[in-house]
Amino acid sequence: MPPEAARFPERLARIRQSLLVEDLEALLFLDMNNIRYLTGFTGSDGAFLLERGRSLLLVDGRYTTQAGEEVGGADVVHQYHEKVAGIADILLDRAFAAVGFESAAISFETYGKLAAKLPSLRLCPLASELVSIRAVKDELEISRLRAAAALASRSLLETLVDIRPGLRESDVALELEYRMRRNGAAGISFPTIVAAGENSALPHATPGARKLVAGDALVIDYGLVLDGYHSDETCTFVLGQASPAFTAAYEVVREAHDRAIEAVQAGVSCAEIDRIARDCIEAAGLGRFFVHTTGHGVGLDVHEPPRLAAATQMLLEAGMVVNIEPGVYLPGQWGIRIEDTVLVRERDCEILTKAPKELTIL
Amino acid sequence: MPPEAARFPERLARIRQSLLVEDLEALLFLDMNNIRYLTGFTGSDGAFLLERGRSLLLVDGRYTTQAGEEVGGADVVHQYHEKVAGIADILLDRAFAAVGFESAAISFETYGKLAAKLPSLRLCPLASELVSIRAVKDELEISRLRAAAALASRSLLETLVDIRPGLRESDVALELEYRMRRNGAAGISFPTIVAAGENSALPHATPGARKLVAGDALVIDYGLVLDGYHSDETCTFVLGQASPAFTAAYEVVREAHDRAIEAVQAGVSCAEIDRIARDCIEAAGLGRFFVHTTGHGVGLDVHEPPRLAAATQMLLEAGMVVNIEPGVYLPGQWGIRIEDTVLVRERDCEILTKAPKELTIL
Repeated sequence: MPPEAARFPERLARIRQSLLVEDLEALLFLDMNNIRYLTGFTGSDGAFLLERGRSLLLVDGRYTTQAGEEVGGADVVHQYHEKVAGIADILLDRAFAAVGFESAAISFETYGKLAAKLPSLRLCPLASELVSIRAVKDELEISRLRAAAALASRSLLETLVDIRPGLRESDVALELEYRMRRNGAAGISFPTIVAAGENSALPHATPGARKLVAGDALVIDYGLVLDGYHSDETCTFVLGQASPAFTAAYEVVREAHDRAIEAVQAGVSCAEIDRIARDCIEAAGLGRFFVHTTGHGVGLDVHEPPRLAAATQMLLEAGMVVNIEPGVYLPGQWGIRIEDTVLVRERDCEILTKAPKELTIL
Repeated sequence: MPPEAARFPERLARIRQSLLVEDLEALLFLDMNNIRYLTGFTGSDGAFLLERGRSLLLVDGRYTTQAGEEVGGADVVHQYHEKVAGIADILLDRAFAAVGFESAAISFETYGKLAAKLPSLRLCPLASELVSIRAVKDELEISRLRAAAALASRSLLETLVDIRPGLRESDVALELEYRMRRNGAAGISFPTIVAAGENSALPHATPGARKLVAGDALVIDYGLVLDGYHSDETCTFVLGQASPAFTAAYEVVREAHDRAIEAVQAGVSCAEIDRIARDCIEAAGLGRFFVHTTGHGVGLDVHEPPRLAAATQMLLEAGMVVNIEPGVYLPGQWGIRIEDTVLVRERDCEILTKAPKELTIL
């Protein structure tokens, strides 16, 4: 049993209390990270049925043995041959009248197939109710997120010493990923972004054969997975010498990053954090080049609630872990993004990612 | 423009002809690999609207520059701020009455949000019609799949010489992945499975700290991505000496694998291939340990249509690329899976993956 086994009763009780309301007789979970959070099962496919007095994990034959070994939060493991039919059989067997389900974790097509097999069952979509079930992290989760962020930052610093003109973007990405894995990561959070020169103006560039040359901006956005939890950090470097325009823009983004982080504490709205970062960049006349939101939650998913965006009225709570990642991107020239992942506390935040954020010349 | 740019007109014409039928005025694509197939855009998020006389790629600000550079199959790139609202605005602007959409590529929740913004538009789910749009590969795709498979097999053979007792499963997985990337892969197809001894009985094991010891079965299921196309291959090895029971079971799985591959040609049903493999394993009394289907298509996705399963009546066609991966798994003891990816031809198939499939002692 993993260390989180001790957490499952509390997590399940909380979900039962908040969601098994009114006339719902059970909740059907389909998001694999929510299932992992509630049961411990780490496989790539399955379903979890939470009733008031019992719970059931459904998996296919590939995972029956693994599920039996891993699962602490489900009372029973049930093997199905085909997923939709397997879920439908169980729900028919229970003769339920109304079941809540994760409407964000099922395709319209699959929903249609399931509903067709259950003509007398009321399937009740749960969406906003489920968004924040993992948003506030417990101590075990925080320790894992802290460890993941620290391991990633250390791996980046070890890799930096080898970065020099002549390497390809893809070489740098591979060496960083290899080092993270050698240092103990189970995997990477997302395909590492290493973008040099004009490529750094693409916020989601794919590392390619472009070679680093003196004067390049170099955006490295990277993360690792450790015990299921993700890290997320971005540094922007310069090779050789930075132009005055780049240096000035860097300081603008850095100020946006710093002010947003200074504002993070329990009770502040997500929109307010986005507003603070955006105001800095707009005041410098670069607003139209800040083409994405300011941040998002980080946990079992590398992108999870809350979104730090203009439209998100949700208030930050102590225990949330979010990133702050303002950026500006001048097409054809360069891009700058500066990102840390932070733990929200009552009166401030703890910065989990550790690479330096002052302008660093490589 | 990438080499596939020359393919977009044919691909778009085919989709328009087969799917823009009856009273549909446009098709809304949401699956990112279908969008890549039809337009060349390689980003991680977006939408593609195909009308009779024009087409439109919708992306968010992170991808505007990239989309402009990459897209050969769309006439126009449109930037949205928020995806659902952006799609809805375009559809409202067009004043369409009926639009087909990929019902497998949109969540029930997102569908609900989109439909709510478009009360007078008939959104028509397309599911089975879309399943096979990429199933038959053209020559460019085949050359990429062939190159991906060959590069993966070569990387495995290079890695094998270093495998010895005392290494952890995770060490072997990391070295294989690193070698694939060093050899030119853009990434891995899926998290590499390296499962030793009793772990090999878990069809989807995660490589861990377990160290290899003499006598272990060793399942390695791995693949890489090259120019967007995936490889998929599994070898089962033995360290030191194999037990008679293991050797006998290996020969059963190998016979299932060989017979299924011998049967692959245009006009044979997917169910028939699954039946042939399953019959071999059932005849040896191991049927209950063959806990998954016999194979699936491989292309821009590592799992794509057709499924080689008992319920799949679809016939194989020349140009389809599928894997054949029978296996048996004895919980607590060992597992065996033997997998090749093959190109369906009119009268036979070409085996694309190249690692040897006879029982190999490491």
